[in-house]
Amino acid sequence: MIVMRKLSYPRDRGEINNLLAGRGFAVADERTELVNDIINDVLNNGEQAVLKYTARFDGIELDGLLVSDEEFKDAYNKVGDDFISSLKKSIVNVREFHRKQLRQNWFTYKNSAMTGQIIKPLARVGAYVPGGRAAYPSSVVMTVIPALAAGVKEVVVVSPPDKEGRINPYTLVAAREAGVDEVYKIGGAQAIAALAYGTETIKGVDKIVGPGNIYVTLAKKAVFGVVDIDMLAGPSEVLILADSSGHPDYIAADLLSQAEHDPLAISVLITDSELLAEKVDKELALQLKGLNRKEIATTSINENGLIILVDDIKAGSELVNRFAPEHFELLVKEPFAILPEIDNAGAIFIGEYSSEPLGDYLAGPNHVLPTGGTARFASPLNTDDFIKKSSIIYYQKKDLASISDDIIQLAELEGLDGHANAVKIRFEGNEFND
Amino acid sequence: MIVMRKLSYPRDRGEINNLLAGRGFAVADERTELVNDIINDVLNNGEQAVLKYTARFDGIELDGLLVSDEEFKDAYNKVGDDFISSLKKSIVNVREFHRKQLRQNWFTYKNSAMTGQIIKPLARVGAYVPGGRAAYPSSVVMTVIPALAAGVKEVVVVSPPDKEGRINPYTLVAAREAGVDEVYKIGGAQAIAALAYGTETIKGVDKIVGPGNIYVTLAKKAVFGVVDIDMLAGPSEVLILADSSGHPDYIAADLLSQAEHDPLAISVLITDSELLAEKVDKELALQLKGLNRKEIATTSINENGLIILVDDIKAGSELVNRFAPEHFELLVKEPFAILPEIDNAGAIFIGEYSSEPLGDYLAGPNHVLPTGGTARFASPLNTDDFIKKSSIIYYQKKDLASISDDIIQLAELEGLDGHANAVKIRFEGNEFND
Repeated sequence: MIVMRKLSYPRDRGEINNLLAGRGFAVADERTELVNDIINDVLNNGEQAVLKYTARFDGIELDGLLVSDEEFKDAYNKVGDDFISSLKKSIVNVREFHRKQLRQNWFTYKNSAMTGQIIKPLARVGAYVPGGRAAYPSSVVMTVIPALAAGVKEVVVVSPPDKEGRINPYTLVAAREAGVDEVYKIGGAQAIAALAYGTETIKGVDKIVGPGNIYVTLAKKAVFGVVDIDMLAGPSEVLILADSSGHPDYIAADLLSQAEHDPLAISVLITDSELLAEKVDKELALQLKGLNRKEIATTSINENGLIILVDDIKAGSELVNRFAPEHFELLVKEPFAILPEIDNAGAIFIGEYSSEPLGDYLAGPNHVLPTGGTARFASPLNTDDFIKKSSIIYYQKKDLASISDDIIQLAELEGLDGHANAVKIRFEGNEFND
Repeated sequence: MIVMRKLSYPRDRGEINNLLAGRGFAVADERTELVNDIINDVLNNGEQAVLKYTARFDGIELDGLLVSDEEFKDAYNKVGDDFISSLKKSIVNVREFHRKQLRQNWFTYKNSAMTGQIIKPLARVGAYVPGGRAAYPSSVVMTVIPALAAGVKEVVVVSPPDKEGRINPYTLVAAREAGVDEVYKIGGAQAIAALAYGTETIKGVDKIVGPGNIYVTLAKKAVFGVVDIDMLAGPSEVLILADSSGHPDYIAADLLSQAEHDPLAISVLITDSELLAEKVDKELALQLKGLNRKEIATTSINENGLIILVDDIKAGSELVNRFAPEHFELLVKEPFAILPEIDNAGAIFIGEYSSEPLGDYLAGPNHVLPTGGTARFASPLNTDDFIKKSSIIYYQKKDLASISDDIIQLAELEGLDGHANAVKIRFEGNEFND
C-alpha cells in the first residue's frame, strides 16, 4: 500500500514547482466581503453587533462577553493538578526562551551628535485562541507569554464560546496561569473587529496575535493598519529532511502528528534514501490505524503528503529553502554541518529526539510559526512582535553645521525649500534668537 | 492673522479625541476594487498587463521595463558632483546607523537541551520610490541601505517613469551609489503586483518597502501575505512639544517643512506657553510667504495644522503618546528628563538643532516612519525588516525524557494523540531502532 505520493527531484521539477506555486495566501477570497461586512458592523454598532454574530455563528445568546471570576473558579475545579503542573513547566520554558530575545536601547555618538534606538513594549495586545470543542491551552501560552516577557502591560485573550456560552476550562486556566485575567467570549471576524476598534466594554488593542480559521485570518488582514497583526496563518506544515540514518518509525510518527491537525495540513519527507522512503510509507500505514483522528490524518497524508527523493542532501536543502516550511526536522548524520544551508524555516528541529510536538508544548521556542512559504520573510512569534522602536536624533549646533550644506542641497533638489529653510534659519540671525 | 487652529487641553478634550479617532487607515476604500483588479490582471497576464497600466497611468508606452546601463550613464551626466558628494555623506551616515541595528544568532543550553535563534537576511527585496516630476534620492537611500546592511543579496528599485519613459536621474544615481543596479520603470499598483508575483522579466521579491500614493498603499495591503511589506504609509506628520524655551522661528520653520509635503500633511505644536503659541503663529504667517510650495503648505497648515495649549509638559507628553506622531520634536529645557515619558513616536528629534529635515537626509536614522498613529505598534524602517528568524531546537534523549510526560499530557488533552505518539515511540522498543 502506497500512502504518500512520491516524486523525485530534479526529475519531477515541474510538478514540484507547481506544488510550491500553489501554496500561500490569496489576495482576495470569496469570503472577504462577508468578513468586511462583519467588521464594519462591529465598527458601527459595537457590542450589539458582536452579540448578534456570536448568536449566529457560535449558537449562543450572551449577555456579557467578559469571563467572570466565577467562571475562572469553575475552570480550576474542572482541570486536574497534573495539567496545571505540565502547564507550569511549559510556561517556565517558554518564558525563559523568550526573555532571551529581549533587546536593549542603544545610542551612539559621531562627534557630538547622538543617535540611537529606544525599545518600548506595546501597551495592549489581544491574543486569539481557537475554541469550540477542542482545548488549546498551548496557544494561550505561546501568544501570551512572549507579550508579557516583552513588557506589555495589558494582554487580553479572546476565544469563541461553546453552545453553553463557556470557554474551554483548560484555555481559561492557561490564561490565568500565564498572567491574564481579561478574557472575552468572542470568536471569528467579530472578535478581531472588537479587538481592533474596541466596543462599549472591550478596549481596543494595538496588536492582535494568534492563529484562527480563515474568517479570523481574513479579518486580521482587513484590520491590519488599524492595528498590527502577527501573521496570516495557513494550514500547518512539517518538512523532514532525512538521510539513511533516519528512524522510519519516528519520521512516520512526526509526519502524522502534523497530518492529524487538519485535512489540509502538509507533511513532506525529503530523503536521499529510497529504502527509508519505503519504510516510512509502511510505518505510516501501520501507525495511521491507531490514531484517534485517523480520518483527518489519512486525508491529509493522502492528499497533501509527499515524499521527494533527491540525489543528495544538498539538493534536499535547496528544496527545503524553496518550500520554506513552518516546521522543519533535520534528521541527518551531521545536522550541524547542514544547518548553515537552511535559510528558510520557521522552527528547525535537530536530531532524532527533537520531535516536532516537543516544540508545540515544552521546548521553549514559539509554536506560532510562518506557514505557506512565508518563512522566506517571516519569523516565529517572538518578543520583537510586542515592542516597537523609536529613533532618537540629538545634534549639537556644530554637528548640524557640519552637514547643513548637504541637507540644504538634497532638500532643494527634492523641491522642498521649506526643508532647506528649517536648517538655514538656525544659522541666520533673527529677531528671536539673538 | 491666525494661521493655525488653536485648542486647549484638557478643555477641548472631545474635539481632540475626534481628531485622533479620525486618523489612521480605513479597512476598505472605494479604490480597493480597482487596485485588486490591477493586481489580478498582472498576476494573470504578467508583463503585458504591467505595460498596459504604465501606458494608461504614466502616459508612456514602453518596450522594456529594466533601466539600461546607457540610462544610468545619462543620469550620471545630468546630476552634479555636489549632489553626488552630499548623497555619499547621506549613504555613509545611514549605513553606519543601520549597521548598529544588526543582530547575532544565539543559542542557549538548559541541561543538554539546546535552543536558539538564527538570523538570516531576506533573499530579495523591492524598494518603491515615488516618481513623476519630483526627485526622491533620499527615498532610495532610506530603503536600499538598510536592506543591504541587513545582508539582502538582491535589492531592486521600482519607480514610475515620466512621460518620456525616463526615471529621474537623481533617483537612478542614488540607486547605483547605494549599490543597486536593477531598477525598473514601473509605478502604482502594477509595480507592487509585479514585485509580488514576478513577471516574465521581473523576478518576484520577498518583501516590498517604501512609501507611495494611496494606490501603492492599497496594493501593498492586498499583496501582504504573498510577500511581506513594511507598512501602510499615510500623510506625513510632525508634532512638536515645546515649552517657553522654544525658538518660535525654528518651530515655525519645522512645522512648515512638514506642511510643504502635502495638503494632507499634519503639523502640530503642543506647548504650555501661550506666548510661544502666538509667536509661532506670527512666524508661520511670515515664513509661509517665502516658500515655493506656499499653496500646499498654506492648505496643510490651515486645514491640518493645530496648536494645543496644555497646562504643563506632562499633560503634553500624554497627548504625544495618544497622537503617536511620525516625527516628534522635543523642544523643552530638559529634554532627556521628558524622553522616558515618550512611548509612541517614530523618530524623536531632541533639542533646537535637531530639525526634522536633518532626519530626512543626513542624520543616519531612517526617514521611513510609521504614520497615522501606528507608532503605537510600528517602528522606523530598520534592519529587522530585512531579516527573519528561525528557532532551533536540539534535544538529547535525556532532555526529551525529562519532559515527555508533560508533552504527552498536554497533547492528549488537546485531542492530539498523534502528537503524544511521536514522543512515546521514541521511548518504546520497536523493530527499527533496537
